[in-house]
Amino acid sequence: MQRINSSIDQTFSMSRIAMGLWRLADWNYTPQQTVELLERVLELGITTFDLADIYCDYRCEQLFGEALKLKPQLRGEMEIVSKCGIKLMGENNNYALNHYDTSAAHVTAAAESSLSKMGIECLDLLLIHRPDPLMDAEVLAEALDKLITEGKVRAVGVSNFLPHQTQLLQSRLSAPLLVNQIEVSLLHSTPMFDGQLDYCQRERVIPMAWSPFAGGALFTDDSEAARRVQTCLEELSQELRMEAQQLALAWLLRHPANLVPVLGSGKIDRLRMSVAALGMEIPREAWFRLLRAARGRDVD
Amino acid sequence: MQRINSSIDQTFSMSRIAMGLWRLADWNYTPQQTVELLERVLELGITTFDLADIYCDYRCEQLFGEALKLKPQLRGEMEIVSKCGIKLMGENNNYALNHYDTSAAHVTAAAESSLSKMGIECLDLLLIHRPDPLMDAEVLAEALDKLITEGKVRAVGVSNFLPHQTQLLQSRLSAPLLVNQIEVSLLHSTPMFDGQLDYCQRERVIPMAWSPFAGGALFTDDSEAARRVQTCLEELSQELRMEAQQLALAWLLRHPANLVPVLGSGKIDRLRMSVAALGMEIPREAWFRLLRAARGRDVD
Amino acid sequence: MQRINSSIDQTFSMSRIAMGLWRLADWNYTPQQTVELLERVLELGITTFDLADIYCDYRCEQLFGEALKLKPQLRGEMEIVSKCGIKLMGENNNYALNHYDTSAAHVTAAAESSLSKMGIECLDLLLIHRPDPLMDAEVLAEALDKLITEGKVRAVGVSNFLPHQTQLLQSRLSAPLLVNQIEVSLLHSTPMFDGQLDYCQRERVIPMAWSPFAGGALFTDDSEAARRVQTCLEELSQELRMEAQQLALAWLLRHPANLVPVLGSGKIDRLRMSVAALGMEIPREAWFRLLRAARGRDVD
Repeated sequence: MQRINSSIDQTFSMSRIAMGLWRLADWNYTPQQTVELLERVLELGITTFDLADIYCDYRCEQLFGEALKLKPQLRGEMEIVSKCGIKLMGENNNYALNHYDTSAAHVTAAAESSLSKMGIECLDLLLIHRPDPLMDAEVLAEALDKLITEGKVRAVGVSNFLPHQTQLLQSRLSAPLLVNQIEVSLLHSTPMFDGQLDYCQRERVIPMAWSPFAGGALFTDDSEAARRVQTCLEELSQELRMEAQQLALAWLLRHPANLVPVLGSGKIDRLRMSVAALGMEIPREAWFRLLRAARGRDVD
Repeated sequence: MQRINSSIDQTFSMSRIAMGLWRLADWNYTPQQTVELLERVLELGITTFDLADIYCDYRCEQLFGEALKLKPQLRGEMEIVSKCGIKLMGENNNYALNHYDTSAAHVTAAAESSLSKMGIECLDLLLIHRPDPLMDAEVLAEALDKLITEGKVRAVGVSNFLPHQTQLLQSRLSAPLLVNQIEVSLLHSTPMFDGQLDYCQRERVIPMAWSPFAGGALFTDDSEAARRVQTCLEELSQELRMEAQQLALAWLLRHPANLVPVLGSGKIDRLRMSVAALGMEIPREAWFRLLRAARGRDVD
Repeated sequence: MQRINSSIDQTFSMSRIAMGLWRLADWNYTPQQTVELLERVLELGITTFDLADIYCDYRCEQLFGEALKLKPQLRGEMEIVSKCGIKLMGENNNYALNHYDTSAAHVTAAAESSLSKMGIECLDLLLIHRPDPLMDAEVLAEALDKLITEGKVRAVGVSNFLPHQTQLLQSRLSAPLLVNQIEVSLLHSTPMFDGQLDYCQRERVIPMAWSPFAGGALFTDDSEAARRVQTCLEELSQELRMEAQQLALAWLLRHPANLVPVLGSGKIDRLRMSVAALGMEIPREAWFRLLRAARGRDVD
């Protein structure tokens, strides 16, 4: 599979498509079944695995780690991404509400907890999950730089950050922010127009795209926009002999920002079908037909 | 007539007011009549002529070129601006929809076609007509730099670009983007507040203003905003002894960004009347009365 | 009281809370009573006094100056901030409408008038009151730099400027813009999210917060947002044993941008109560509960 090399840090690369594990617990796999899934996913060329401390009510990293322990040699073939900075109400805490915490103490503890739960020595990429209005850029930057110096984290990035938020954190950080993981899909195309993806391109930040199928809404939702997109996907499916999901991915992959879609499926056939989209560049006109369907209007 | 000198490239200048030729075909002039119009326009001091590949269903450059061929010595008195990057459905193509194309192949071919249609050796200014979400800044920048190196284009710029889009393209381009041609008028004053004109001033980009009379809506439209502006223009017409059109232009010309209005009239009397606005600076209070009319509210 | 030191100009500092004098005339104090108030305010550690040429229908600086003349030695204990750039209709002028004027002539004259009315030799800080669409950055910058060189103004800043407006002015100015005074409160929290405070932090500009209680609406207004905030303030009042006003201030003070709230009360007890909020850092969860009340929704 094609890989995305960071232009900022030439030693860092990801697979062109990443696997998202936020629903790992829902799949109800035994550790052995998870190992088998991971092996097949790796065979497809997907080497980048996306987690977060809070996924699956804080259990995702543990489940992933249990699988890894059965076959530790898989670790070396992977880039493991995790995130922290959100405090989510749940059974194992008594938070009064969902909120953010990007303090040095919390971020450091969260990163160390990620390592411990997964049984690994170093995260390939640690992302700050959400822009925190209480983020003290100097304090957070120092904590992130320290995690890198200590070898606990290889590289850092952000998620859901607007350009001014990325710029603020970067202004105090020694390490470069290599990645911004944001929501992008045919039903959420604003990052292509409001400067988010332009900023990534200018500063050579790799944009990962979460919910590349809008959480499935792209294919099942009843909103006007979704129905327009569904109709267009059907037409193009026949014209280009591609599956709707492949089209939705190919639409993202054609963007010059080099989006890395994060796929949340645990079904290997679906992943294989999606990966095949990498070899299917859609024509420019097809791209704009999908954009027109998504926005409900022609370009100006 | 006053001229606007680029602060970035001291060898580049434009007339303070430009003539727009996007309706040239509608005027139904013979080449000889067009030559006579151009001569009179040049006599007024308007030396900058604004075209685009797509104007008049792709015929504008040809019509302009036919006139130029009758009197080739006019070329030396002009700055010729053209644009590319839009693919517009029409009789001479089979595009499935209007869309953008800022690929190296298309932009290069479009620029060369502009030269060929106009029968000139070099464009003074080539603008990318619209921000293309599929713009690959590196690829486009290389194509633009090459057009300059080859002597086919003297300078480059953009049109309808937001600051982050301009910044992205500039980040990969050797040549400076000298111009951004955007919509500005009393009925479209947002660029004065949302950062577009501030960016131009900061980076010393010349802003050309298309539709400076909002396509005529300023004087004829029935919307609330237009009627408020019309009333204010009438009052000020009497107080300042200026025509409504002169006031609308003087309002743009007083802005410190040094806006270059693009006038789309083919009637020499109208152009002469407009040009006279250059000598009529309106008082600060009149400027803010017009702004209040346009926005329907006092300043904060 | 804690002080905020400018990271840009180490010789410049303000008290962590400033006193706003825009209602000074309403208090109907004799000059002697004003002196007594100022003395008590200084005893609280509030040394920064915020004025503007237009406050109290252009009479504020005069009233403040009359008090200062009774006890000139107070001047040395203060930082005096004033603003100019707005032309407000009133009895002493015949402006046709409220408008802005950031011309060199007006700004220079306004600054000199401020000195004269207050009977002082130098303003500690002169702010441009509002972003003026007609601001000629080069001209204004030259006027501001000259005021500093001449010793009439010690430092300069802006008020109500968006980042792109600040960047434009700064791009032409030798002196650094040390301060941006903007509206921030629980009922106006957008500057925490739209880049305004991120810009201040990145560029180390001190943000002063006007209307930190939303002009009182925070405690008395009947809007849905205000009522949600009022309920939350009541709950937290009991939990944290703080007054509602202290909570509203502590919410601002906890923000890492180091907001300097401008308090507009002339009652020393109220000011003392507010100042006590400086010693009361609220917990992170309380901060996010107030944010949730203000926005009517959880964080993402």
